[in-house]
Amino acid sequence: MRSVAVAGIGKTPFGALTAENIRSLAVTASRKALSDAGIEPGQVEAFYLGNFAGPSFVGQNHLAPYIAAETGITGVPCTRFEAACASSGAAFFHAWSAVASGIYDTVLVTGVEKMTSQTTPRVAEILAGAGDTAGEMRAGATFPALFAMIATRHMYEFGTTREHLAAVAVKNHANGALNPDAHLRKRITIEQALAGKPVSTPLTVYDCSLVSDGAAAVVLTSKPGAVRVAGIAQTSDHVALDRKATITTFPAVRAAGEKACRMAGVTPQDIDFAEIHDCFTIAEIIALEDLGFVPKGQGGPFTAAGHTALNGRLPVNTSGGLKSKGHPVGATGVAQICDLVLQMRGQAGERQVERHRRGLAQNLGGSGATCVVTILEAA
Amino acid sequence: MRSVAVAGIGKTPFGALTAENIRSLAVTASRKALSDAGIEPGQVEAFYLGNFAGPSFVGQNHLAPYIAAETGITGVPCTRFEAACASSGAAFFHAWSAVASGIYDTVLVTGVEKMTSQTTPRVAEILAGAGDTAGEMRAGATFPALFAMIATRHMYEFGTTREHLAAVAVKNHANGALNPDAHLRKRITIEQALAGKPVSTPLTVYDCSLVSDGAAAVVLTSKPGAVRVAGIAQTSDHVALDRKATITTFPAVRAAGEKACRMAGVTPQDIDFAEIHDCFTIAEIIALEDLGFVPKGQGGPFTAAGHTALNGRLPVNTSGGLKSKGHPVGATGVAQICDLVLQMRGQAGERQVERHRRGLAQNLGGSGATCVVTILEAA
Repeated sequence: MRSVAVAGIGKTPFGALTAENIRSLAVTASRKALSDAGIEPGQVEAFYLGNFAGPSFVGQNHLAPYIAAETGITGVPCTRFEAACASSGAAFFHAWSAVASGIYDTVLVTGVEKMTSQTTPRVAEILAGAGDTAGEMRAGATFPALFAMIATRHMYEFGTTREHLAAVAVKNHANGALNPDAHLRKRITIEQALAGKPVSTPLTVYDCSLVSDGAAAVVLTSKPGAVRVAGIAQTSDHVALDRKATITTFPAVRAAGEKACRMAGVTPQDIDFAEIHDCFTIAEIIALEDLGFVPKGQGGPFTAAGHTALNGRLPVNTSGGLKSKGHPVGATGVAQICDLVLQMRGQAGERQVERHRRGLAQNLGGSGATCVVTILEAA
Repeated sequence: MRSVAVAGIGKTPFGALTAENIRSLAVTASRKALSDAGIEPGQVEAFYLGNFAGPSFVGQNHLAPYIAAETGITGVPCTRFEAACASSGAAFFHAWSAVASGIYDTVLVTGVEKMTSQTTPRVAEILAGAGDTAGEMRAGATFPALFAMIATRHMYEFGTTREHLAAVAVKNHANGALNPDAHLRKRITIEQALAGKPVSTPLTVYDCSLVSDGAAAVVLTSKPGAVRVAGIAQTSDHVALDRKATITTFPAVRAAGEKACRMAGVTPQDIDFAEIHDCFTIAEIIALEDLGFVPKGQGGPFTAAGHTALNGRLPVNTSGGLKSKGHPVGATGVAQICDLVLQMRGQAGERQVERHRRGLAQNLGGSGATCVVTILEAA
């Protein structure tokens, strides 16, 4: 396999962007990434689009050529990849595979979601499509309800507390407040987080990620660059929670983390900082454990002790994460890559971390049925 | 690039299959293909799912791991590919790429669509999502209306007649009547086709493909086999008809055909038989021209002269095509591959053609924004 570099990154701000549509968002991010890489649209040999539910949110399907042509790309393979909240992680994985194996030298990977629209009142139902609609959804379980069950069980098994969950939210809001592109730039206190409006007990509104619009894009190339993909893996598992042996650990996350580390020739302790899929606060805690950063059950205390803060041992979600930066579902996986690269280039402004040679991104689909883990390394 | 063999095929019947759901259809086809290839689910290294609009038709998204896990496949990359009516063609192309380039030795590609459901009354609107919803759909143009404009212009430019269109329908219905898995096994006459209920002038109900449920699957492997992929290409173009320089030729089809032939080292005249994307009768006529089987404008007369019949010079859609076999959108691309392989193995029963050493499949997305062309060759 050849070495693959992230040659360019581009993002729109995340938020409720009522003046934009799904195509304008994706085209903006795509053009920024191409420009950042110094690549013309005509040089792109294949286009990989991550999008979860464009047809459901805005009625537009066949999105890959729809966006590519407007970006100036025609004639080449243009394909939409869907893997729930890991849609653009999956697009990135397949794009990396193609460049690493020598099929293409230069490709564009874009993720997009337009969630605020006239279908927003149906957002919980559309998101529930990432779970088992015939079982979980029919039983009334939205995603907050599924992760509430996971949190409750994690509390029971490992003594995780509401304060641990709140510590994730407080930290991610603090980081997001420093990110000019974040959806919700608002610092919160532990007290506020604990007193949040209940969504699905024990989760409050401060435990849940945001409903956002946004897009992110990266150019991957076989030419040597400042940032390269050192390790990557995409894995899968059952979709329905009731088909899993345990709900406090995600085998797909463990396997993706192990494979990516093995490919990079590193251990979790060699990672300088990470972007982790905090769709809910409990998801960040479980991912810290499943990725091997801490022993099982220690994700909460590790966070509460400040080790994942900007100045901590392992800064996590320096972008603000899905909680504060926002979570336009199909954009999230590629946005994580953009945020890693910003740090690795020393361009993260007020939230710049000191050690930024090796970053890890973890993108989760549904309640653990898809996971993509990527490790980037400075050349 | 390594040689890639189609080691196994599996299909469900196509039709209005009310007792089946989207997962049961896909799992049935997948298991048949694995069994045909003599492969255990645990040997599958990656799963490629083609599906156009499962979330819109039946509310279920995140379909790749949902279907894979039920088939016995977990832990590996499981991803849904969407490219409108070429969704499973795109999945097949990416799967072929991965095996040809040495990433995997054994992969499963499945296509599925469940179109008859409580959302069937919205089928025209859901299908219109494959076009430009902000332009074409807003102006009231469903897909039959778009292809009616294409047909009208083709008639004006090249003298194509209603009788030419009807000849495509009569031939595909005759073939489908011999296919036990076809949706509509009914021979029709030219008179019947011409007297069909109007859908969008000049197209009648006999010019339009069917709204079907169904699934198809293939196993691709790097091991030598009886049938190998000799040439393949995926290409793209603008989605909206009004963005194209002409609407009587599809540049994406021409490019995909030329690239696939170049890779296979053949000319169109070396192809023994073909499965062509006859979403509308005019689409088969235009594809015959764009793929280089006949000069521009000669698709209608070539068909009316019987050259594409079972015993003709170039048998086209021996399966019955989308017109008679049925068109469960996301299944169509892989179903075409299955139908080529059936002929190449000499297992096509009453519709078996004499020369079946080299077959071509053409899978179209939308009104020409995506095209995948595959050439299979007997070893």
